[in-house]
Amino acid sequence: MTEQDTRPGPSRRTLLGWGGAGLALGAAVAGGTAAALDLGGEDAGPAAAGGDAVPFHGVHQAGIATPVQDRLHFAAFDVTTTDRAKLIALLKEWTAAAAAMTAGREVGTGAVGDNDELPPDDTGEALGLKPSRLTLTFGIGPGLFEKDGKDRFGLKSRRPEALVDLPPFPGDNLDPARSGGDLCVQACADDPQVAVHAIRNLARIAMGRAAVRWSQLGFGKTSSTTPDAQTPRNMLGFKDGTRNIAGTETDRLDKHVWVGEKDGPAWMAGGSYVVTRRIRMHIETWDRTSLKEQEDVFGRTKAEGAPIGKQREHDEPNLKAMKPDAHVRLAHPDSNSGATILRRGYSFTDGTDGLGRLDAGLFFIAYQRDVRDGFIPVQTRLSRSDALNEYIQHVGSAVFAVPPGVRDKDDWWGRALFA
Amino acid sequence: MTEQDTRPGPSRRTLLGWGGAGLALGAAVAGGTAAALDLGGEDAGPAAAGGDAVPFHGVHQAGIATPVQDRLHFAAFDVTTTDRAKLIALLKEWTAAAAAMTAGREVGTGAVGDNDELPPDDTGEALGLKPSRLTLTFGIGPGLFEKDGKDRFGLKSRRPEALVDLPPFPGDNLDPARSGGDLCVQACADDPQVAVHAIRNLARIAMGRAAVRWSQLGFGKTSSTTPDAQTPRNMLGFKDGTRNIAGTETDRLDKHVWVGEKDGPAWMAGGSYVVTRRIRMHIETWDRTSLKEQEDVFGRTKAEGAPIGKQREHDEPNLKAMKPDAHVRLAHPDSNSGATILRRGYSFTDGTDGLGRLDAGLFFIAYQRDVRDGFIPVQTRLSRSDALNEYIQHVGSAVFAVPPGVRDKDDWWGRALFA
Repeated sequence: MTEQDTRPGPSRRTLLGWGGAGLALGAAVAGGTAAALDLGGEDAGPAAAGGDAVPFHGVHQAGIATPVQDRLHFAAFDVTTTDRAKLIALLKEWTAAAAAMTAGREVGTGAVGDNDELPPDDTGEALGLKPSRLTLTFGIGPGLFEKDGKDRFGLKSRRPEALVDLPPFPGDNLDPARSGGDLCVQACADDPQVAVHAIRNLARIAMGRAAVRWSQLGFGKTSSTTPDAQTPRNMLGFKDGTRNIAGTETDRLDKHVWVGEKDGPAWMAGGSYVVTRRIRMHIETWDRTSLKEQEDVFGRTKAEGAPIGKQREHDEPNLKAMKPDAHVRLAHPDSNSGATILRRGYSFTDGTDGLGRLDAGLFFIAYQRDVRDGFIPVQTRLSRSDALNEYIQHVGSAVFAVPPGVRDKDDWWGRALFA
Repeated sequence: MTEQDTRPGPSRRTLLGWGGAGLALGAAVAGGTAAALDLGGEDAGPAAAGGDAVPFHGVHQAGIATPVQDRLHFAAFDVTTTDRAKLIALLKEWTAAAAAMTAGREVGTGAVGDNDELPPDDTGEALGLKPSRLTLTFGIGPGLFEKDGKDRFGLKSRRPEALVDLPPFPGDNLDPARSGGDLCVQACADDPQVAVHAIRNLARIAMGRAAVRWSQLGFGKTSSTTPDAQTPRNMLGFKDGTRNIAGTETDRLDKHVWVGEKDGPAWMAGGSYVVTRRIRMHIETWDRTSLKEQEDVFGRTKAEGAPIGKQREHDEPNLKAMKPDAHVRLAHPDSNSGATILRRGYSFTDGTDGLGRLDAGLFFIAYQRDVRDGFIPVQTRLSRSDALNEYIQHVGSAVFAVPPGVRDKDDWWGRALFA
């Protein structure tokens, strides 16, 4: 394989309006990865030949049930403006930029190229790269509805009951600087440069109206939403989340992930709720633990990822064959009155801490129809009893309401909330 | 494209000795990416079908002139033992582990699987992944020869003259916690999980003898060592380093990169010297700068990457058409008495700083035959005059002697130094 083989090939990305640089591609680009979604909008057609764009418009936001990409850049924002009109303008600008970037186009209208005395609309580092299945998924944190007792934007009465502040869990060691946020954007792509470019350009557009509170890069996916795929390994070397909800399981998605028409509020119908947790793993301690202990802690074999006593990863687990505090046993819906979440987490490594230990672990991302029926009961049980707790610590936490998809080019992120 | 399409296919990685998990692959695996190298050793054969391993053994270490992979994990280590024999034992163990991992095999002999009361030899998170062109490149910092006036390992007299401590440069704002190191390992791979796994396992092997001082993840390459390939863009959206030395240019490699037989010391013949600089980019300031200013600063067009006044990226630059302080003009060998370095840097993003600004930039890596004729003259000029200095700051720095390649399975990293 030569280096060129792994470079992106001819790209649909192009420079809009930077003189003489390329052709403007005006049409939205169709992708081939969202077959399970009931998509509306202009880009819901069949896969374009060679295309690797995920449709942006649809009933649900992409980046939840669509196939999991390889890399993540997740950003939480504090809203810095107090002006409702400016906030709305930001969300409209973000939506337009997201539609362009997910289709492999640059941010902006092309007007810049006529005047090189202005900064370019787009920062440029993704020029020449493919769409790389980029998805941008937008969420709204509790603080947008009410902060320090203030109804900042006249939205207090519209806060969903399901968007609860997470309770403290035993063992939490949360860093406020890595927690919370008024807004979030989850950028997933197969090329990290494409994901980083997207967050950077959204942050740039937000200037004066919202600022990045924290962000997290994920270098390797740890979950799959594609049936039959092997589950990727986490930083402890194990497959975890084997029985994840697949993007094709519409019944399970409707039951556990998508907010229904009757769930309320109406502006959330077709949306979901996301919980993120930065979970530091005590890698060095784990690495000194025997194979048997490791397998007992998870309730799976390390090599194959099979449930204890079974042969293959996807074999039905026999929970009673596992230790009572095994992670798989405690996280299983049968141990949590059926509570089921869609996991979409990524491994991270952020260098080393002051003691030469890797600052590494899992950036956990879970989508659910109601946080009170999803993450909270599962984590309540895990935080009390999970054998894994000896090797991990939750150091960041956030929760966001994820509105339904943007229907067409006149729609925008959160429109129904502000209607 | 389905998710499965992007998952690694059937893998040559396998579990050695974890009961029942797979077949042991004993033979070294040949790769197809090092055609320009005069490789010896058992793995110098033609590319294996479907193989994407880069040969570990050879005259030169891989990871310098071999094609640049997509992702980086670079780690610098402090040696914590004072025992020369223990240091040597570590280097032998590291070499064996590196040979295994670069071939897509796990660390270890397979003995562990017979006793699950012991920790696994390998941490496991790369099981099932392909070799992903992993290269592991080993270097030795000034501190191994002498630290705080002490000749720690009887090596003081063997320090190469070319391994100089870098002088301070104007504008430097170096963080000691991100600088220096007694040893380094550069892990490059197309899959970041493979690179992270390699550094983690080397750090684990080093326990009690060496500890990670700092490490850096790079998410996107910014250079190419393959002729005619498009140069990847950096975080400022520009192509920089177009006229890099290609891995096929053996004359330029011999002149500028490889230490010659007569250069001395003998143990470095076939080796090189690497300089790393963590260069923070003031992204937000840059993004407010006009396109014209950006292009004047670099001396290239943003869209195509052509030298000012030219049409295509690889056109011969006309330095006089550029502003006197343009980056390309000042970095060009014609402005530096011919000083030429092989660049192999990566973009990084390490979240945000306390002000909501992206902590992002370039982790600069340059290889050269003699630091005094390579990085130092180039950076002396750039640090004084480069127009780019308004938008960047060097915040980490290190220099290492990179010994020649490991010749065969009886050889090990640094053997000639200790002979």
